[in-house]
Formats: sequence, structure tokens, C-alpha cells
Amino acid sequence: MNWTLTIGNKAYSSWSQRPWILLRHFDIPFTERVVPLDRATTSVDIQQHSPTGRVPALQAGDLVIWESIAIAEFIADRFPDKAIWPVDPDARAIARSLAAEMHASFTRLRQHCPTNFRRPQRAIAIPDDVRHDVDRIEAAWSATRQQWGQGGPFLFGAFTAADAMYAPVVNRFWTYDIPVKGETRAYMEAMMALPAWLAWIEGAKAEPWFIDKYEAI
Amino acid sequence: MNWTLTIGNKAYSSWSQRPWILLRHFDIPFTERVVPLDRATTSVDIQQHSPTGRVPALQAGDLVIWESIAIAEFIADRFPDKAIWPVDPDARAIARSLAAEMHASFTRLRQHCPTNFRRPQRAIAIPDDVRHDVDRIEAAWSATRQQWGQGGPFLFGAFTAADAMYAPVVNRFWTYDIPVKGETRAYMEAMMALPAWLAWIEGAKAEPWFIDKYEAI
Repeated sequence: MNWTLTIGNKAYSSWSQRPWILLRHFDIPFTERVVPLDRATTSVDIQQHSPTGRVPALQAGDLVIWESIAIAEFIADRFPDKAIWPVDPDARAIARSLAAEMHASFTRLRQHCPTNFRRPQRAIAIPDDVRHDVDRIEAAWSATRQQWGQGGPFLFGAFTAADAMYAPVVNRFWTYDIPVKGETRAYMEAMMALPAWLAWIEGAKAEPWFIDKYEAI
Repeated sequence: MNWTLTIGNKAYSSWSQRPWILLRHFDIPFTERVVPLDRATTSVDIQQHSPTGRVPALQAGDLVIWESIAIAEFIADRFPDKAIWPVDPDARAIARSLAAEMHASFTRLRQHCPTNFRRPQRAIAIPDDVRHDVDRIEAAWSATRQQWGQGGPFLFGAFTAADAMYAPVVNRFWTYDIPVKGETRAYMEAMMALPAWLAWIEGAKAEPWFIDKYEAI
């Protein structure tokens, strides 16, 4: 097997974190190719590795798979014995709904609280429309954990692709010190204790690239 | 089996069309529940049927699955003998990349050319940023058809969930008379000849609801 994952800076690329921690958590070997986003990097440069000019993209032999959610499905297809998605078919359906909702939603939260995995924890004002996104995420996590989360601290007990999709949100909640319920905090703590998460943060801290506009917030 | 698909107006709801024509094309029985979007309908009303307050949502017994791409995966999970996704694993991976890209991209095209399945064909000015989206879609369809589309007129030969995801784009290209390549036109014509497509258009034309802002464009 010869897989290469193209990612952006670990400090800022929320999309890149998703497949990276999924592969890492499930001990699937891959080579990492970082395209630093702070230089004169354009989408045309990234198109060498991804047809959309965006990260992440997974190269598996001659095949290039793009979009984090499609990469998760590809990993699940190639490793049917690993529970990339929950094994229970109903739980799996909900996991995919949650992942797809993350994939296309919460733009207010994403714009107001940009990803920065190196940022010290410091609260900022949270407008109502951002709070609306936070409330929906908390409600979704809570309902999922209540129905499916008995076997462990993650959305479906054990860590799955649904958790990987929400991992960057955990960082947003934490670093911008957004007030959340106790059960949300417990989920965040489980995520932030995951070895794959810690390895990602360590990688982010070791990077030499800084983007002023993200550091100013 | 007892499936109910909650959708918005057929005339305007691009997201609703995706799972609807997928179910219809693959002859999977379902009940349709239309939530007209022109009244004082709020996301709170829709929350009776969908946890996000958005359509579509598929109710399967006690389970509610939301997000069109997750509904497609659920259908594929429940009907493993139907080729909801391409059977070839590499083709399937690309189909999911295309579907996920559609799920979260092309916002300029979507905003500039809102969905209206009843609209007579009439060209409008297409700014460069919208053209950029159109170019990417044409390139993606072309590359896919070239590698995987030998067995029929759709992206992977036969109609799959990837085509269902792009069906509303076909309507946008057609109704706003956007200039496209001959091969793109051929794909559009195959889509618009599909019995499931024609049934959707017929349903849209029979609806009594009109939203002024979409009719004005």
C-alpha cells in the first residue's frame, strides 16, 4: 500500500486534520505531503495533488480522492475490518448524517472562529448567529451520545469518522473558550486526549509558517 | 419497508431532488412529504421531520437520516444489490469525491442561478466567478466520463448517486442557458431524458406555490 495524504498547514487547516487523525487513529500507514498555505501558494499549485485545488487529497497509487468525507468513505471501503464508521447500520446512517452536516454547514462558526491549533485559549465575543451553530452542534452531539454513545466517550462510543469530522470544532470550542455544557466539555476532553489529536497538535506547533490574519484573532 | 422522504417544493428545492430521483430511478418505494417553502414555514416547523430544520430528510421506521449525501449512503447500505454507487471500488471513490464536492461547493453558481425547475429557458449574464464554478464542473464531468463513462451516458456509465447529486446543476445549466461544451450538453440531455427526472419536473409544474424572488430571475 502506498498512500500519500496532501494537507495544508497543520496549524490552520481544519479540513486536513480530519482524514489525518482518522488514518493515524486507525494505524493506517501513509506519507504526509504538506502544502504550506502562507506562501504564494495558489490553487493551481495544489492542483498538482488535488483536482479541486484544495486540500486534503489522498493519493492511493494512481488514484486521487478528494474531499474529507469521501476520503473517510474510501478508508472504510479499503479497511472493512476497521470500524471507520459505526458497525450498527442505524448508527452508521446517523454518523454519516452528522459528517455530511459538518461538511456543508456551520459557516458562521467557521468564519468567526477560524481554525488555529496553536492559539492559546482566549475567549472572544460570540454573536447570536455563531451561538446558533454552537447550539445545534451541542444538541447533535448530545442526542447522538444519548442514543449511541454508551460504549465510550465518543459520539458512537469508540472514535469513528464522525468524530474525525468534528475534531476541528472541538479545537474551535476550546481555543475561543466558547461556553458549553458539561457533557460537551467531556466529549471535548476525550477528543483532546486522543494520541492522534496530540500528534497533530505537536506537528502544528513545530511548523515555521504563520499567517497574520489568523494569528490576530 | 416504510420510508417517507420529506422534501421542499419540487420547483425550487435542489437538495430535495437528489434523493428523490435516486429512489425513483432505482424503483425503491417511498412516501413523499412536501413541506411548502413559500408559506410562513420556518426551520422550527421542518424540525418535526428533520433535526437540522432543513430538507431533505428520510424517515425509515423510527430512524431519521438527514443530508442528501448521507441519504444516498443509507440507500446504498440498505440495497447492496443495486448499484447506487459504481461497483468498481476506484470508480466508487471518485463518485463519492464528486458527490462531496457538490455537497459543499459551487456557492457562486448556486447563488447566481437559483434552482427553478419550472423556469423557461432564458439566458442571463454569467460573471467570471460563476463561470469558474461552471468550468470546474465541466472539467470534473469530462474527466470522469473519459475514465469511467464508457458503459452509458452518465458519469460512470449507468446512473448513480453521483449523477443524482449533480442533477440540479443540469437544470441550472439548462434553464439559464449557460454556454457549455458539446460533451456537457450530451450529459445534460441524458439526465433530462431520465424517467425519474421527467417525473420530478411534472411534479414541479403541478405545484400551486410560487416564490416571487425566484420567479423574478
